[in-house]
Amino acid sequence: MKSLGVALLGCGVVGSQVATLLGTQRDELAARIGATLDLRGIAVRRAGRPRDVDVDDRLFTADAAGLVVRADVDLVIEVIGGIEPARSLICSALEHGASVVTANKALLAEDGATLFETAAKADRELWFEAAVAGAIPIVRPLRESLAGDRVHRVIGIVNGTTNFVLDKMSTTRTGFAEALEEAQALGYAEADPTADVEGFDAAAKAAILASLAFHTRVRVADVHREGIADVSTSDIVSAEQMGCVVKLLAICARHELPGGPAVSARVHPAMIPAGHPLASVRGAYNAVVVESEAAGRLMFYGPGAGGAQTASAVLGDLVTAARNRVAGVRSAGESAYAQLDMLPMGETVTRYHIFVDVDDRVGVLAAVATEFSRHGVSIQTVRQEGRGDDAQLVVVTHPAADAALAATVEALAHMDMVREVSSVMRVEAEGD
Amino acid sequence: MKSLGVALLGCGVVGSQVATLLGTQRDELAARIGATLDLRGIAVRRAGRPRDVDVDDRLFTADAAGLVVRADVDLVIEVIGGIEPARSLICSALEHGASVVTANKALLAEDGATLFETAAKADRELWFEAAVAGAIPIVRPLRESLAGDRVHRVIGIVNGTTNFVLDKMSTTRTGFAEALEEAQALGYAEADPTADVEGFDAAAKAAILASLAFHTRVRVADVHREGIADVSTSDIVSAEQMGCVVKLLAICARHELPGGPAVSARVHPAMIPAGHPLASVRGAYNAVVVESEAAGRLMFYGPGAGGAQTASAVLGDLVTAARNRVAGVRSAGESAYAQLDMLPMGETVTRYHIFVDVDDRVGVLAAVATEFSRHGVSIQTVRQEGRGDDAQLVVVTHPAADAALAATVEALAHMDMVREVSSVMRVEAEGD
Repeated sequence: MKSLGVALLGCGVVGSQVATLLGTQRDELAARIGATLDLRGIAVRRAGRPRDVDVDDRLFTADAAGLVVRADVDLVIEVIGGIEPARSLICSALEHGASVVTANKALLAEDGATLFETAAKADRELWFEAAVAGAIPIVRPLRESLAGDRVHRVIGIVNGTTNFVLDKMSTTRTGFAEALEEAQALGYAEADPTADVEGFDAAAKAAILASLAFHTRVRVADVHREGIADVSTSDIVSAEQMGCVVKLLAICARHELPGGPAVSARVHPAMIPAGHPLASVRGAYNAVVVESEAAGRLMFYGPGAGGAQTASAVLGDLVTAARNRVAGVRSAGESAYAQLDMLPMGETVTRYHIFVDVDDRVGVLAAVATEFSRHGVSIQTVRQEGRGDDAQLVVVTHPAADAALAATVEALAHMDMVREVSSVMRVEAEGD
Repeated sequence: MKSLGVALLGCGVVGSQVATLLGTQRDELAARIGATLDLRGIAVRRAGRPRDVDVDDRLFTADAAGLVVRADVDLVIEVIGGIEPARSLICSALEHGASVVTANKALLAEDGATLFETAAKADRELWFEAAVAGAIPIVRPLRESLAGDRVHRVIGIVNGTTNFVLDKMSTTRTGFAEALEEAQALGYAEADPTADVEGFDAAAKAAILASLAFHTRVRVADVHREGIADVSTSDIVSAEQMGCVVKLLAICARHELPGGPAVSARVHPAMIPAGHPLASVRGAYNAVVVESEAAGRLMFYGPGAGGAQTASAVLGDLVTAARNRVAGVRSAGESAYAQLDMLPMGETVTRYHIFVDVDDRVGVLAAVATEFSRHGVSIQTVRQEGRGDDAQLVVVTHPAADAALAATVEALAHMDMVREVSSVMRVEAEGD
């Protein structure tokens, strides 16, 4: 049987699982591919360090750049993460004739163009199912299954850490800091949780999803991003009173405008109705809803992270890439023919839930309502709750442009009788 | 731009949507493929009949056999259904050089081997995403995304008609006949509902799913099949008292046995816990849960039928097949290297919920319990409800082999004090 050489870049949580599965599943993989997959080397920072992976110690090397250009390497798996040296290594691997499987969402969202162009020029394949939502197949369905349809919107919970934290806050009424600590204790959040909590991880995934869904290059810099650090227990309780739950959502949408279609991509906490399919995604799970013209609403659900789960996605790509090597063929690469414009965030339209802390005196509600109306933001409901000498207004708007809402909030903050606009959160409803 | 010729076989609910989308999405599809898709003909039974599809009337032909062998046809879409003439037409198309996209679950489940072997021999592609669960991408995830993983079980709601009926019975407490009538009135069930109600449609899909999941040819004849016609309102109420709902499930499992692995595939109504992801699949929706070694539990959810939805799946396959034609490559075909044995139905193990109508006299519970014990079936709970001079026993067993349970039921039916075993339903719990 033919042998294909595999180089593994990185041997952390995902890499060690990949190495293990390449061993335990060796015969099954060979049967499915029609060739054996043989590890030629594992690039790590320190080659001498003892590791809990059952592979020949001589496979470890600190020379990643030398490994990817070896003539006996047909397939390169990149699970180092980050921009450099990952980018240089992937490009070098492609240029030297290897197909590449990567889980690197940050790099794809930052500079996917370089990777795709290098792959096309070298006539090699670049696969990245593991970059979005772990083991959940979402890249392939968007690239292939829905290739004959028009996607209107992709809306997902694509970060398990923040979903765990928000779920915890919701079920136990603990505050953000305490819920985050528990997530860290349980291994769901890293010691430095910034990438998750501030939405950077979800924004990278949103960029990748939007690129696939709309055949348009969307970079992470194009994604509007807000994290969950400011979400309070009051927001969550108020959401529940409205029959909603709070989730960190990645929302990628196509907008049909008079001047032609445009796309938007954003990541922010939002209230969604308890009956929405994403509302019941608990703990560290991920789910992605795709709404398209002909197929309607589809949902993909599963574990969004974890070493074994991500390794499953990596190996799925590896089998496809290996089968194509055996057959001597190359699958279609990037589809970015549409290159639609990005809709400015100020022009996106949603409903909003706002807490306004005000003096408890006659006329305050009328004055606040007038300010909304002056900016063209229509109020759906308002609830006033007295709290001694001050009061809180809970305002829910009809759909309004982001810029109009921002101007309203700015104006409210300057009103004498307003003490603070203590929370502004979007409300995402069905089909908005 | 290059042109690819498309032949459409069938112009019913799905076919007319495919023809329409080929027109309205023409430019987008061309951009994605790198070639235009041009309809060369639409094979129908009666070519002269007026139709509500916006295509040139001259495209319609009654000569399907002549259409699929035309030299200017590169891609054939088969949405006629049934065994013949669909099988002959698909084989002829492949042999004459076309790639084929089919939605024909019955044919794939009856004689997929002939189709796959013909495709392999002709070095052509056969795609069939639309054959299972409408627009929900499940074929491609099993074939490709999970190709590096080991699937343990696939459990799904793959028939929208029966799910609608059971859902209706559950929410409104109507009986089976009435719920079915409503499904027919709303267009969710056909005038002759046999294929859906008796589980034939679900069994065909189970055969296809099992084949893909376990790299083994599984035919519809290998699938144990029970329909929903005998499900009563009492079953549904009793399920709810146990915190369960009743669903028609397709269950495909891999069993690790002392003599080596085996697979099973079965379709039957079952009680599942209300917290199970499939329990909240309502109305005519479909969902498939895949449990695998590394990826864990994934769920795919969406509309399981409908002309536009199925057309979306067909067009996704068509774009992939067309891209491959343009690139001059062929994707991997059938993966059936494992050829695992089928586990006899009698050896499958589940829990059971049983209604036994008995005389209301002293000792009946003991006598019935003894009969279970004599056949090696362990009882988890039993509830006795008096109803005048007779009583009903509601028995829930621990996991037991199907054959042992069947023997128990047979023995109970012959007991003097037993009037009737009025219902036997499986209880499928997490991870069983």
